[in-house]
Amino acid sequence: MRTVLGVAPHPDDETLGCGGTLLRHRDDGCALHWLIATQASAGEGVSQAWVEQRERTIERVAEAYGMAEVHRLGAPATRLDAVPLADLVGATSEVFSKVAPHVVYLPHPGDAHSDHRRAFEMCASGGKWFRQASVEEIYAYETLSETRFGLDDRQPFRPTAYVDVSMWLERKLEILREYSTELAAFPFPRSEESTEALARVRGAESGFEAAEAFQLLRFRR
Amino acid sequence: MRTVLGVAPHPDDETLGCGGTLLRHRDDGCALHWLIATQASAGEGVSQAWVEQRERTIERVAEAYGMAEVHRLGAPATRLDAVPLADLVGATSEVFSKVAPHVVYLPHPGDAHSDHRRAFEMCASGGKWFRQASVEEIYAYETLSETRFGLDDRQPFRPTAYVDVSMWLERKLEILREYSTELAAFPFPRSEESTEALARVRGAESGFEAAEAFQLLRFRR
Amino acid sequence: MRTVLGVAPHPDDETLGCGGTLLRHRDDGCALHWLIATQASAGEGVSQAWVEQRERTIERVAEAYGMAEVHRLGAPATRLDAVPLADLVGATSEVFSKVAPHVVYLPHPGDAHSDHRRAFEMCASGGKWFRQASVEEIYAYETLSETRFGLDDRQPFRPTAYVDVSMWLERKLEILREYSTELAAFPFPRSEESTEALARVRGAESGFEAAEAFQLLRFRR
Amino acid sequence: MRTVLGVAPHPDDETLGCGGTLLRHRDDGCALHWLIATQASAGEGVSQAWVEQRERTIERVAEAYGMAEVHRLGAPATRLDAVPLADLVGATSEVFSKVAPHVVYLPHPGDAHSDHRRAFEMCASGGKWFRQASVEEIYAYETLSETRFGLDDRQPFRPTAYVDVSMWLERKLEILREYSTELAAFPFPRSEESTEALARVRGAESGFEAAEAFQLLRFRR
Amino acid sequence: MRTVLGVAPHPDDETLGCGGTLLRHRDDGCALHWLIATQASAGEGVSQAWVEQRERTIERVAEAYGMAEVHRLGAPATRLDAVPLADLVGATSEVFSKVAPHVVYLPHPGDAHSDHRRAFEMCASGGKWFRQASVEEIYAYETLSETRFGLDDRQPFRPTAYVDVSMWLERKLEILREYSTELAAFPFPRSEESTEALARVRGAESGFEAAEAFQLLRFRR
Amino acid sequence: MRTVLGVAPHPDDETLGCGGTLLRHRDDGCALHWLIATQASAGEGVSQAWVEQRERTIERVAEAYGMAEVHRLGAPATRLDAVPLADLVGATSEVFSKVAPHVVYLPHPGDAHSDHRRAFEMCASGGKWFRQASVEEIYAYETLSETRFGLDDRQPFRPTAYVDVSMWLERKLEILREYSTELAAFPFPRSEESTEALARVRGAESGFEAAEAFQLLRFRR
Repeated sequence: MRTVLGVAPHPDDETLGCGGTLLRHRDDGCALHWLIATQASAGEGVSQAWVEQRERTIERVAEAYGMAEVHRLGAPATRLDAVPLADLVGATSEVFSKVAPHVVYLPHPGDAHSDHRRAFEMCASGGKWFRQASVEEIYAYETLSETRFGLDDRQPFRPTAYVDVSMWLERKLEILREYSTELAAFPFPRSEESTEALARVRGAESGFEAAEAFQLLRFRR
Repeated sequence: MRTVLGVAPHPDDETLGCGGTLLRHRDDGCALHWLIATQASAGEGVSQAWVEQRERTIERVAEAYGMAEVHRLGAPATRLDAVPLADLVGATSEVFSKVAPHVVYLPHPGDAHSDHRRAFEMCASGGKWFRQASVEEIYAYETLSETRFGLDDRQPFRPTAYVDVSMWLERKLEILREYSTELAAFPFPRSEESTEALARVRGAESGFEAAEAFQLLRFRR
Repeated sequence: MRTVLGVAPHPDDETLGCGGTLLRHRDDGCALHWLIATQASAGEGVSQAWVEQRERTIERVAEAYGMAEVHRLGAPATRLDAVPLADLVGATSEVFSKVAPHVVYLPHPGDAHSDHRRAFEMCASGGKWFRQASVEEIYAYETLSETRFGLDDRQPFRPTAYVDVSMWLERKLEILREYSTELAAFPFPRSEESTEALARVRGAESGFEAAEAFQLLRFRR
Repeated sequence: MRTVLGVAPHPDDETLGCGGTLLRHRDDGCALHWLIATQASAGEGVSQAWVEQRERTIERVAEAYGMAEVHRLGAPATRLDAVPLADLVGATSEVFSKVAPHVVYLPHPGDAHSDHRRAFEMCASGGKWFRQASVEEIYAYETLSETRFGLDDRQPFRPTAYVDVSMWLERKLEILREYSTELAAFPFPRSEESTEALARVRGAESGFEAAEAFQLLRFRR
Repeated sequence: MRTVLGVAPHPDDETLGCGGTLLRHRDDGCALHWLIATQASAGEGVSQAWVEQRERTIERVAEAYGMAEVHRLGAPATRLDAVPLADLVGATSEVFSKVAPHVVYLPHPGDAHSDHRRAFEMCASGGKWFRQASVEEIYAYETLSETRFGLDDRQPFRPTAYVDVSMWLERKLEILREYSTELAAFPFPRSEESTEALARVRGAESGFEAAEAFQLLRFRR
Repeated sequence: MRTVLGVAPHPDDETLGCGGTLLRHRDDGCALHWLIATQASAGEGVSQAWVEQRERTIERVAEAYGMAEVHRLGAPATRLDAVPLADLVGATSEVFSKVAPHVVYLPHPGDAHSDHRRAFEMCASGGKWFRQASVEEIYAYETLSETRFGLDDRQPFRPTAYVDVSMWLERKLEILREYSTELAAFPFPRSEESTEALARVRGAESGFEAAEAFQLLRFRR
């Protein structure tokens, strides 16, 4: 049985970026783990009720995926880059060591949101075989609301790996609806219609009814 | 009145890549010109009937766009790279000089099809102000069936300019249907569903119901 | 009437990078806004007199451009990267929301000075249409003293847009002279001779007596 | 049983680039196919005896790998770029259609030798799922004597996939010795010592005694 | 005494790109060699008189530099890409072997003109130490009229090496004037004013009154 | 006599990255300086005894190279990015001003370890001629354990300069053995076997028995 780790800067990134693939892994019998980097706190433009609601959402989503475990770093949302990197790397490494994942999904290092770039950075040592011997495959996923909004062109998302999620797209969209406070009407990028359109485009590129696209970062076998 | 030139390696690329934008230019009162680089001939896997049908399609499409003029280089399809570049540049330059376009749309230099890359290359001298003084804006467009299939990652399509084509998408899809022999069912990239999904994704990126995305190559004013 | 926002890590960057273009926008009837990210304080190698002198320079320069308003973030010079990004993004977003600019000019993300890179980063969310709906065009400008001195080659300045500033070059150089403490004799990059030579080279590239070059970051219409 | 296709511009590239991986695939029960793009002819600096010797080498190498079949395009060596691309694509597509490979290994598009770049280009349509439905994985391999000698830096070889060939390195070096006319003493890049040193470096990068490194071009599952 | 080889697709490129550096090498006691790739012929838009005049220009320029020898490939101008690459490589290799240069200057592979890109390509094997053992340093130079006009952004000119030509700029401009038929008034890129402005900008980048900039391609010592 | 400065994020990087080249510089009569950015402290997973042992190692290594002087910034290891950049730049600039180096070796900006990237960044102003007039050449070196482990592909190490260290490899490996706590058995990247294999591969690329490879960042003469 293989172990899969999805890393989300904020809850919902795992679903937007690799929700269908995680569901497919689950149906293949893999153990799923979810690492959430940040946490919203009451007072930063959100109410305590919102924060509690978000916690319940996380529980429901974890259940929907059948997550073996949810790992929380608890860093402040939008301020992940203000936490010393060494501390993030330390906390992340503990999770990696405990989970011993074979397959890892990360946000893309060129994403617009600094939390995404930092979440990528804190996991990068997972690509060192002498640090994390279990890791065989690492991929970067795309989140339409961030990956297409980096003004900085040094690092475009270059998909090299496509996963057929035709049979899991409906379920992915259902889970996405749990994040109702994050969604808005099309053409907002975090909407069902945007998410489905992206799945269709990635499908047209790879010959499937619906697909998720990834950039392979490292593979060893 | 501004003059716009759309360059198509093969008929249908202009519609897939910038059909909505051309229609919008037309409604803005611009004069549209269409440069078609290649021509299919009977005997290369296509019948004489197919070739004649294709000619009628070109006429109908030109009429649908209200093209001021269609310019044909007549180079052999799939073999544009076998025509000496100097000859292509010469023929292209004549068209540019005659049309004196202000805005030019080219296929992307990273496209999978060598005809696309060659069509880009033959027009590149249009970016020299001392060769073509009329040209103010040059853009590369994307064609899902080619731009996403270059294995070679040196030159990903990096969209920097988005055009709202919400009001012209239906008309674009209608014109696309004229190219019935080039289309197939989704997930084939040259299908209505693929084309619409791409327009939605580009719309989500730019805040429109439907958009076409371009990479600005050069702008001078 | 269109609104234009020039973002300067330090006062003088707006003039070096897009001074001629701002003047041309002004003559076209646009409203100009100036966002200055950092502020020098007495004690960091500069005297109180220098700081007061600099304030008067800013006033004179603002007047010379006919700035509608000057917006000051007041972050410490050379230490912009030490201010939490979330705070900078918050302050910047307020300015964007208040000004509602159509056109934005930013420093280049590959500049040598970390204040330039951070100033770019804090404005990057301005490229999200669902954050700042007014923004239609965003450009990166070049400042000879920084843009050509990044040792790191991941992100060269790639000019795609050229603006004819032949009629505004003299006025730009006049304004530049206000920053006398920042200038030195050629070949120092911040000198009149360097600035003019760059304008000539950019002019030769675009067919004008003098030009400013930009890298288009995002355009939507 | 999976089918694997190794594409060699010249005989020996398959061994230098992916010899260990092919042997491992063979031991895993895959069917191996070898596509050789060019052919040397007597008179181009080589004797008829040399040409005949080379043919016998190809036979022995094919046998050593247990190749299911060897496919020869027979294009003139060092002149692959002079054969019309459409002809090469046609011939390559026939091989792909006949073999129906699941996994394909290509030379790297940034290699110094134009035959390597052309061999890559002629196979690129193999990345279109609607042309070659069987293909699931395409990789570029490195050949020390070419991949490290492209002066042109637009396209460095960026290894993303590592294959443990510890158990197959000796056998790979044995096969390499069959190409005695292509080898010379270290530091010549086509030498046993160079080949082994590269396998060690790639091993140090991936945690194996010896490895071959690849750049994943496309993966779909 | 070191031997220096300047490669010019067309006569004048050597002066535009590295004229000051060649003159400085000459004053340092190096032997200078000039390889001219193409040749204009009467009938291609130029008269026989023009062709003869051009020959006399070449002689005068060679004398002005004190060239040890001028090497002519005689390929047709604007059609270098139509000559089989193997033939060009063969002819170039003969020149390299005869001259045994230590330092080589090439046009940039991202130049707009296909003759420039082909001239680069035909010399690329000069970067293989086992082909040309004499070569220690290879640089790409810039020619304002071509290097800044490639629409294709895959390969921007990235200067890494700067040579102080303050003492040789006047002489370079004098030689440039020999190519009167190629020059036009500023802002034409091939003009004295453009050439001097570029030398000033490159000087401001490197701390010299005037400089030429190069991209180091390969260095071994 | 020329002055050479090797910058090490942690002691051992100078040896892994440019040890042979430093030794060759020394034999050429250059004065060697060593800038060490970080310092380990007891309590961060290391004992006081380890820290003292490390100090003695630094002394022995400095002696082995014949370092003119060792410069210590004393920043906390693994937390260099938490020190304000302005402070690091200030401290680094003092060292540069005091040493007045002609040649500088830096870690690569694409390295996996954030200390390496920060050490690069803090030295980048050394590339400004108007800040550090002495500097003529700046190179980035590679450290197998970091340079090959950046998951982020925006900035691959692109070697352009090769130095023959055949005569100094043995001595380099001897010095490396001083860092016994940092080494482990092959295939660990910091091992004698890995280091030698890399030297052989770089040698095969450049025609030497053993070489070190660098990316030229800036050169002025």
